[in-house]
Amino acid sequence: MRISELAERSGTSPATIKFYVREGLLPPAAKTGYNQVSYGEEHVRRLHLVRALVDVGGLPISRVRAVVAAVDDPQVPLTEVMGVAQHALPGREASSPPSDPSRAAVLDLVAAQGWAVHDGNPGLAQVAAVLDTWVAMGRKDLFDGLPHYARAAEAVARTDLALVWPDAADRDRSAETVVVGTVLGDVLVAGLRRIAQEHVARTTSHSHSHSTEEPS
Amino acid sequence: MRISELAERSGTSPATIKFYVREGLLPPAAKTGYNQVSYGEEHVRRLHLVRALVDVGGLPISRVRAVVAAVDDPQVPLTEVMGVAQHALPGREASSPPSDPSRAAVLDLVAAQGWAVHDGNPGLAQVAAVLDTWVAMGRKDLFDGLPHYARAAEAVARTDLALVWPDAADRDRSAETVVVGTVLGDVLVAGLRRIAQEHVARTTSHSHSHSTEEPS
Repeated sequence: MRISELAERSGTSPATIKFYVREGLLPPAAKTGYNQVSYGEEHVRRLHLVRALVDVGGLPISRVRAVVAAVDDPQVPLTEVMGVAQHALPGREASSPPSDPSRAAVLDLVAAQGWAVHDGNPGLAQVAAVLDTWVAMGRKDLFDGLPHYARAAEAVARTDLALVWPDAADRDRSAETVVVGTVLGDVLVAGLRRIAQEHVARTTSHSHSHSTEEPS
Repeated sequence: MRISELAERSGTSPATIKFYVREGLLPPAAKTGYNQVSYGEEHVRRLHLVRALVDVGGLPISRVRAVVAAVDDPQVPLTEVMGVAQHALPGREASSPPSDPSRAAVLDLVAAQGWAVHDGNPGLAQVAAVLDTWVAMGRKDLFDGLPHYARAAEAVARTDLALVWPDAADRDRSAETVVVGTVLGDVLVAGLRRIAQEHVARTTSHSHSHSTEEPS
């Protein structure tokens, strides 16, 4: 198809398509003759993936490039594709590593949940960074919520795995699914959280005594 | 205190502190004499908030400015502060509004959960944008997970509200709590999700039959 048809089918302007090709987010069109090029279905699919990461996931172009490079490299195992997607999410490169007490608190939480994970799981540092912030802001009381959040996160993870467990027989499609599941899953849960917050706030009496109640 | 002490207590370099003042993220120091200025405890607290939003939340400077402006304006009600924080999160300004079918699917989900929310809740468009992406990528099967995700999100929201329900008696502190709860809560849940995903993946047999199982 010509660039005009690709633009229409993907909802992306020709100028943006050319920009994505220059930036390495989209493979160039195939040459089909002198001065003629043709885009295929793989371009439509890739554009949807790129737009999802940029528009819905909020990823900067440089991180989208790293993600699609991992998706496109058949040598990269699916678990590593997930790792690249996780590291591409905003706010991953904190200026300093989390403190030892916060890392220990996260490991305590993991043990209390009976979770088996390796030391390099990016979630460990991510959660520890949040705990450091709570401590810095004088809100150690928020630690009380951790077991409740952990239980909810496990319910999310069980749904994730049931839905998007990679199908090793189709590596390319699975790689895309893993990326979309990782990046958009966070957006999905965050969006549902906003909606549920309003519902809970409306249907709950607003006395301050709530801070001592069983949250879930 | 002098800028060197503020830098040490906040873990932020003097150059960055001056940058934040220029950018309007931090109030200027008080003049305490000819050629002398002094920073106070409010600067320490504000720096922790700004660093949390930048480093952990991944917010660009321009959005941090909008958030702290809402926190600092006593005329802005707490619910609106929460709205500003929600809109500051990455990936909010999609290029086009979500499709009508996806919006309808989200409203169906909300109704099925028995949730009472108003049309302007930013989560509605956010979730609809994710559904549009699933459809565009040929993954309508992921819709099956929505009720499970919604239940988990409600558990998160109940914990949120129990922990950080604004204390109207101290508007400033509550405004900070709402911002930190909104922005860092997403990061927290996303981090716990990564950890739980690894645990569930390790402790689950990996046959493809999972896609038809009850996820939670």
